Amino acid sequence: MKTVIINVIVVTMNEAREIHNPGFVMFEKDTILATGPMKDLPKEENVSGAHFIDGKNGILMPGMVNLHTHMGMIPFRGLGDDCKDRLRVFLLPMENKAMDQEMVYLSTRYAAGEMLLSGVTSVLDMYYYEEEAAKAMDEMGMRGIAGQTVMNEGACDFSDPFDAIAYGERLIKKYAAHPRISACVAPHGTSTCSKEVLLAAYQADASYQVPFTIHTAEMDYEMEYFRKDYGMTPVQYLDSIGVLGEVTVAAHCIHMTEEDLLLLKKSGAKVAHCIGSNTKAAKGVAPVTNMLEKEIPVGLGTDGPASGNTLDLLTQMKLCADFHKNETKDRSAFPAEIIVSLATIQGAKALGLDAVTGSIEPGKQADMVLVETGSANMFPVYDPYSALVYSANPSNVEAVYVAGECLVKDKSLVNVELNELRDSLIQKMKKTEFRKYMVL
Amino acid sequence: MKTVIINVIVVTMNEAREIHNPGFVMFEKDTILATGPMKDLPKEENVSGAHFIDGKNGILMPGMVNLHTHMGMIPFRGLGDDCKDRLRVFLLPMENKAMDQEMVYLSTRYAAGEMLLSGVTSVLDMYYYEEEAAKAMDEMGMRGIAGQTVMNEGACDFSDPFDAIAYGERLIKKYAAHPRISACVAPHGTSTCSKEVLLAAYQADASYQVPFTIHTAEMDYEMEYFRKDYGMTPVQYLDSIGVLGEVTVAAHCIHMTEEDLLLLKKSGAKVAHCIGSNTKAAKGVAPVTNMLEKEIPVGLGTDGPASGNTLDLLTQMKLCADFHKNETKDRSAFPAEIIVSLATIQGAKALGLDAVTGSIEPGKQADMVLVETGSANMFPVYDPYSALVYSANPSNVEAVYVAGECLVKDKSLVNVELNELRDSLIQKMKKTEFRKYMVL
Ligand SMILES: [Zn+2]
Ligand SMILES: [Zn+2]
Repeated sequence: MKTVIINVIVVTMNEAREIHNPGFVMFEKDTILATGPMKDLPKEENVSGAHFIDGKNGILMPGMVNLHTHMGMIPFRGLGDDCKDRLRVFLLPMENKAMDQEMVYLSTRYAAGEMLLSGVTSVLDMYYYEEEAAKAMDEMGMRGIAGQTVMNEGACDFSDPFDAIAYGERLIKKYAAHPRISACVAPHGTSTCSKEVLLAAYQADASYQVPFTIHTAEMDYEMEYFRKDYGMTPVQYLDSIGVLGEVTVAAHCIHMTEEDLLLLKKSGAKVAHCIGSNTKAAKGVAPVTNMLEKEIPVGLGTDGPASGNTLDLLTQMKLCADFHKNETKDRSAFPAEIIVSLATIQGAKALGLDAVTGSIEPGKQADMVLVETGSANMFPVYDPYSALVYSANPSNVEAVYVAGECLVKDKSLVNVELNELRDSLIQKMKKTEFRKYMVL
Repeated sequence: MKTVIINVIVVTMNEAREIHNPGFVMFEKDTILATGPMKDLPKEENVSGAHFIDGKNGILMPGMVNLHTHMGMIPFRGLGDDCKDRLRVFLLPMENKAMDQEMVYLSTRYAAGEMLLSGVTSVLDMYYYEEEAAKAMDEMGMRGIAGQTVMNEGACDFSDPFDAIAYGERLIKKYAAHPRISACVAPHGTSTCSKEVLLAAYQADASYQVPFTIHTAEMDYEMEYFRKDYGMTPVQYLDSIGVLGEVTVAAHCIHMTEEDLLLLKKSGAKVAHCIGSNTKAAKGVAPVTNMLEKEIPVGLGTDGPASGNTLDLLTQMKLCADFHKNETKDRSAFPAEIIVSLATIQGAKALGLDAVTGSIEPGKQADMVLVETGSANMFPVYDPYSALVYSANPSNVEAVYVAGECLVKDKSLVNVELNELRDSLIQKMKKTEFRKYMVL
C-alpha cells in the first residue's frame, strides 16, 4: 500500500537542495516513489487505496545520521559531568564493574528509542558486546552500524584485542545481507591500539567496505604521545601505517595541522564532528570550516550519552552554528543549509549509505522525519533550514519513518513503550554498582 | 487553599543550595510556606483541604529569569538568520514599516506564552510601545519589567527620545504598585543615545529603583566609536557620565578590559549574559568566568527571538556550559550548579527581585517550574543540576507557577490557547510587510 504524506515543507537535501512547499512525499514499502509540490500530487484515483497523512505544515526532512556515539553508555549519563578526571574516576571503573552483554543490549535499545524520538534514523555505534547492540538496533527498527570496539589493554568484553577483532569480523559477516544493520571493527583510539591491532581492524573493515571508525586527534595526551614517540600527529601516524582511507571515519579530529587536513582529503577519509561533546569536555573546536573548504566529508556525531548527554542532532546543529560562526567571526559562515546537510546527506555519505538514505529522493529508502511547526518555538517559519537549526529542539519531532516503517507517531514510539525500555534498564542497573549512584 | 507539590527533587537555590530529594513544597495564594524532604511533610490532617499534586519524581526548580529580550520581535524570528548585514537589510526597515502598538501587544503575548512554556517566569523586556508589552505580560500572568527603549534617532514609536523617556516614566508610575509588573526606561545602546538621553533615562530609573538596562560593549562599531571619539571603552564612558550604578543591567558586555570589569564591580552594575545571541552573531564570548571571580552579578538572557531565536533559558544554560568550559580549557569550570544559579537566583538579584523570586524558600513568591524526568532524554538523573543543564530541553517543562498561579500544566498554557496567540499574531502580520516573507 502506498503512503502519501501531504501538506509538508519537503526539505529534500537532494543535489539541487530542492524544497517543496507545500509538498508531498509518496512511498511504498521501504522505498520513496515520488516527491514534489502539492500541485503535482497524483490524483486520488491514481493512488487508490493509498494512505494519506496530513503533515499539517510541518517540515519533512531526511532522517538524521548520527556518525559517532556509544549507545551502551546510557547508565553513565550525567554521572560526574563536571569532574576534572571523569574518565578515570567514573567511566573506566564503572565500565569494568558494571558493563556486560545484558546492559549493552538494554542500554542500546533505550538509546535507539531516544534517538528515534529525536529524528535520528541512522547511527554508527561504537562500544563493547556489539552483537547485543546490533540485535537491539535491529529490534528497534533503526538503521545502524554496530562498531565493535577494540583496545589493546582489553575491555569489559575481551581481554585480547584480537579476540575482539575476530568477534567483530563474525558480526560483520552475520549482518552482511541485512537490509538495515551492518557491523564493523572500531579501534578505540590512535594511541590505545597497537599498530598490529589497527592494521588487522582496517583489513577487516576495508575488505567488507564497512567503516573503520576510531577516536582521532581528540585528547591532549594523544597528541603528546605521537609528538614525543613518533614526531608525528595522530593523522600522520594513521596515514603512515596505511589505515587512512575511504572507509575511515575519524571521530573528533579536533587538533589538526594543515598537513593533517590535506592527508584526510587525499585519503578520502571522513570526519565525525562532535561539537557538543568536544566543547563540554573543554577539548576545543575542530576546524570544520577549513575541512569543508577542502571538501573533506564531514558529518555530525553526538558522542556517547556520558559525553554529550543528548543523543539528538538538532541540539548538535545549533551548537555547530554557534561555535563555528563565533570561531570564524562571521555571522554568515556555516549557514543553516550547510548544517542540515551535515546532519543528513553528508552523514550518509560518510557511512557509504548515500545511495540508501540521507535525502528524500525517489528510489531511496523512506527514512524521513516530520518536524512539527505548531509548537511555540517554531513560529514563524520563513526558511525551513533556519527553523531546524536555530529554533527546533528534539521535542518538535512528530513522526519518524525508517525504511518506510513508522517508528514514531504523535511524538511517541509506535512499537514499544518508552517506560518499558527505561524500566528494564533500571532493573538491570539496580543489580550493579550503578545502584550506589542512583537517586531516583 | 494550600497546595502541596510532593515527590519532587526540590532544587531550592537557597543560600545553602539545599536539595530535597524526594521533597515537597507547600504554598498558599502567592507565597511559599514550606519546603523540605518528604519525611517532613505535614500530616494530611494538618493541611486539611490542601490540594496535593504528585510531581512524579520531576525536578522542581525556581522559575527562571530572562534578563534580556525583545518580546515584540517574534515576527522577525528566522528572518535572514545567516545574512551578513541582517540588522540593516531586514530588522531596521521592517521595524519601521511593520511595527506598531498592536503588533507589540500580540507579539509580547505570544513571547510570554512561549517563555512560560519553557519555565521562564520573570523577564526584563526591552522594546517599543512598552505599555502594550506591560499589558500583555500582565494578562499572561508573568512577572515582568517592561523596558521602554529610547534611541536618539527615534524609533517606530517616538521620533523624539525625550518623548520616549516621558512615556517610560509614566509607565513606571502606572505600574509602581503592581504585584508582578513594573517598568523602566531602557536606552538602546551606549553609542545610539546621547549623553543627555542616557542621563535622563538613568535619572528616571534610579529614582524609582528600576533597572537601567542598555546594550553594552556588544558591537564592533560601538567599540571603535568610543575608542576613536573618546579614547574610552563603552563601560568607561557609562561610568564617566555617571550611569553605571546598582540599577544598571548591562546587556552583553562581550568586549571587556580588566579595567571595565573592575568598574562594573565597583559600581554594583549587573550583566545580562546572552551567549546564544552573541555567538550566533559571531560577536564573541563575554568573559563571564572572570566576572564571576570578581563577584560581578551575572544573569542569563536570551536576547530577542530575532537574535537568539529561542526564548528559553535551558538552551542558554547548555550553551553557557559548553562555551565557557571550552574557553577556559577546563571541563570542571562553570559547573552545572553555578549555571543554574545564573538562570535563577542571580537573575533575580540582577533585577533587585531576589527577596521576591529566584529561589524556593518560605516567604518568597511561588514562582516554580516542574521539569519532568520521564522523557527519554532525562534518564538517568544522578544530579539534578547536571540533568537541567546538560540533558533538559524546554519541552521537559511540565508545569509552571507564577505567584502561586498555575500557568502551565501538562506542558500546555492553562489560561489561553497557544493557537489563539499565534493566530491573532498571524492575522496581524498578514496586514503588514511581513506578508511578503511568510511561507506558511
Ligand atoms: Zn566517542
Ligand atoms: Zn538585545
